[in-house]
Amino acid sequence: MIKVVAKAKLKPGVTVEEYLLQARELVAETRKEEGCITYALHQDINDPSIVTMLEEWVDEEALNQHNLGDHVKRIVPGLREMRESTEINIYREVE
Amino acid sequence: MIKVVAKAKLKPGVTVEEYLLQARELVAETRKEEGCITYALHQDINDPSIVTMLEEWVDEEALNQHNLGDHVKRIVPGLREMRESTEINIYREVE
Repeated sequence: MIKVVAKAKLKPGVTVEEYLLQARELVAETRKEEGCITYALHQDINDPSIVTMLEEWVDEEALNQHNLGDHVKRIVPGLREMRESTEINIYREVE
Repeated sequence: MIKVVAKAKLKPGVTVEEYLLQARELVAETRKEEGCITYALHQDINDPSIVTMLEEWVDEEALNQHNLGDHVKRIVPGLREMRESTEINIYREVE
């Protein structure tokens, strides 16, 4: 399993409600993808300007396919416009 | 549900194996805690010096109790010694 933490800081003045207006469709479409285990937007309880997608994928190939998806190409640019910064980490569990 | 992303950058020369030697006990003890849903250490697939605990808790109180736990007080200082930096975000899902 592959886990992704895609952490974004919203631009000043951008609200999570505005962000969600566009992110909801991305979440809905992504959850239909075969290799998607979980995919959900979260807000930092101490800093409302930090919104982070926490994702779980069956493998790296599923994540790669996701990033090529039409809905990603169509929706993510608009989300990026609302972000001051984005930090993406792709993880594998270690035991 | 509360989710925590506790992202750490290891000091130069510190390996994830060394870190795991101490982290394993923290993981094992924490998973016994009543409010703990998931608690696992992950390594960034693109940067092996980034090790991150991805956590899920039933609520904030469970997380607060965790942070007061003996195993946390005993083990975390040693883990901190091996870290160059730590960044903790506490999240709630938004829909």
